[in-house]
Amino acid sequence: MAAEQTSKTIEAYPMNGGDGVHSYANNSSYQGRVNNAAKRLITEAVVEILDIENLASSNTLRIADLGCSVGPNTFFAVQNIIEAVQFKYQCQGLDSQLPEFQVLFNDHTSNDFNTLFSSLPLDRKYYAAGVPGSFYSRLFPNASLHFVFSSFSIHWLSKVPKPVVDKSSSAWNKGRIHYPNSNDEVVKAYQAQYTEDMECFLHARAKEVVCGGLVALIIPGRPNGMHHPQSPTTVVLESCLMDMARKGIISEEKVDSFNLPLYLMSPQELEAAVDRNGYFSMERIITELGIITELGTVPETQRQKISSSLRAVFEGVIMAHFGYEILDELFDSFGKKFEVEFMRKTRLGSPSIFFALLKRKATN
Amino acid sequence: MAAEQTSKTIEAYPMNGGDGVHSYANNSSYQGRVNNAAKRLITEAVVEILDIENLASSNTLRIADLGCSVGPNTFFAVQNIIEAVQFKYQCQGLDSQLPEFQVLFNDHTSNDFNTLFSSLPLDRKYYAAGVPGSFYSRLFPNASLHFVFSSFSIHWLSKVPKPVVDKSSSAWNKGRIHYPNSNDEVVKAYQAQYTEDMECFLHARAKEVVCGGLVALIIPGRPNGMHHPQSPTTVVLESCLMDMARKGIISEEKVDSFNLPLYLMSPQELEAAVDRNGYFSMERIITELGIITELGTVPETQRQKISSSLRAVFEGVIMAHFGYEILDELFDSFGKKFEVEFMRKTRLGSPSIFFALLKRKATN
Repeated sequence: MAAEQTSKTIEAYPMNGGDGVHSYANNSSYQGRVNNAAKRLITEAVVEILDIENLASSNTLRIADLGCSVGPNTFFAVQNIIEAVQFKYQCQGLDSQLPEFQVLFNDHTSNDFNTLFSSLPLDRKYYAAGVPGSFYSRLFPNASLHFVFSSFSIHWLSKVPKPVVDKSSSAWNKGRIHYPNSNDEVVKAYQAQYTEDMECFLHARAKEVVCGGLVALIIPGRPNGMHHPQSPTTVVLESCLMDMARKGIISEEKVDSFNLPLYLMSPQELEAAVDRNGYFSMERIITELGIITELGTVPETQRQKISSSLRAVFEGVIMAHFGYEILDELFDSFGKKFEVEFMRKTRLGSPSIFFALLKRKATN
Repeated sequence: MAAEQTSKTIEAYPMNGGDGVHSYANNSSYQGRVNNAAKRLITEAVVEILDIENLASSNTLRIADLGCSVGPNTFFAVQNIIEAVQFKYQCQGLDSQLPEFQVLFNDHTSNDFNTLFSSLPLDRKYYAAGVPGSFYSRLFPNASLHFVFSSFSIHWLSKVPKPVVDKSSSAWNKGRIHYPNSNDEVVKAYQAQYTEDMECFLHARAKEVVCGGLVALIIPGRPNGMHHPQSPTTVVLESCLMDMARKGIISEEKVDSFNLPLYLMSPQELEAAVDRNGYFSMERIITELGIITELGTVPETQRQKISSSLRAVFEGVIMAHFGYEILDELFDSFGKKFEVEFMRKTRLGSPSIFFALLKRKATN
């Protein structure tokens, strides 16, 4: 457990903490809308697939949100899961056997748990706990979780793949901050990191989730068979950083060594990882959840909001590499360039969101 | 649960967060020394009283530290409990059945959990979680804890007793900040608050602790039969606040309405509360753990340290009432007055520490 956790080099860039103007809490309405779309799927998962007779032996139903950030989306999500379970017990006339609920909110150790805790709903019907650490390692005791939820989180890799920052490697990703427009070696390095990370994720969850327990994932990814899409965000961010390098504000070398630890998996890639792991059955895989930032379709009133929400997401990873000083200038020019892309109604191959539901098999 | 938690007005003054010069983390060596003295008692409790056969049905042993603050004492304490359990399993030849450990670190929601999480030992052999909230309410699911530990915490009441700040009450505590030198009505109001709080504490723990589980408490209190002792800290603090009122820095009324929510129980009072609750047996009560701040006996090199450690403890409760601005001046004069008391080798009736070990009975 602990050894497993600390032997890995995991890079942690949590979403912006606090509740200020650039905080994730105030800039995550897009993620919230997708979670809302996922609400029905989660309810169906609980009603149709969660085996409450099997769980009734425990008097506590434990729910974990992996990569919870600081809210409010995490609170809506867990509330939704709990209401679905309550509904199922009621429908089956088992009201009197309704378990207590404990919700374990997980994110990186550097996540702002103080803000998360102080914003916990006062009328919550569950016991709350915060669990710090990377979900690519063990976080919970054996067979202690009944429902695991993770939204907009497992597309973050545990770290930037080493070869892409190694000048002597054929996968060195000079002049780029992500892999979609890079050569095959770079793409392969990202794929390899994804494969390793997803193996760790499923290995840990296979130990932690009770037999019959569910894992529901909302994942920004790419459709099966599609080439890795270049997200408008990354294009604009890369261009802004190169501008700053040209102006001498940051060194070109610093940009060369910066890469986003993000991978957009396809449903097929996830299915293959689940098969290799062997401890879960894939119960649902639903690909029509939404598209991230099709710029041409966004109304003007929403644009500033999107730009702010991207700052909340990316500030941590950028600050860790470039320092605090460049943030305001970078995101100023980011906002402006983004506006231009809006005017052009740019349509790049956008990441799409999918929903996956895994069930822990009865084998140990 | 949640309703139970929020219907109560609980005042929260956690120890100073962070790791700065006035932080609790850097100013709690006295508490650490007492915990060290308690180490042997905890080990004995586990070895002689914890019924591991009974617990072996669970594959996880859950330990809670109530009022954990930000460390490092909490880490030493839980490490000690875990080592004692491991030792017991080894002695009984049950190494292969050793459970996993999960440690639930509890303190007020406003405690600095971010610092606590970032200072978790890297080589820990347990899964860690933070649980925000008052331990005078439910914090954990039914029958989910095997060992509860709380050190230097349950002498903090859930709030200042109402009558002592009510001008129309015979228990109005004008001109004083605590009860020991006050009239009987004030003492009774504090006693009543203690009785209510301890009832809530034991009621919640009776639900949360498994049958056979242990509750180990390290409590700053007073010996049986002794009048409520006036602690040198309170005397000096009161005198400094009155000085500031005389100088017009704060109003006299503000001092009148300030009271420390602390109660120094006797072992007999605790035993009576445990009897009334009915769900626990008192397995040990040991009164020779140490004396707080017998000023005359403290070497000069330690004095500044004691003064700092008292700031770490009291700053929160004082800031909540008087504001941030007075802190530096107050604790400057506090340090100097404390020094004078040292020179006088003042001996006031000092609070003494005792250790209590409760075992959850097998009845439900």
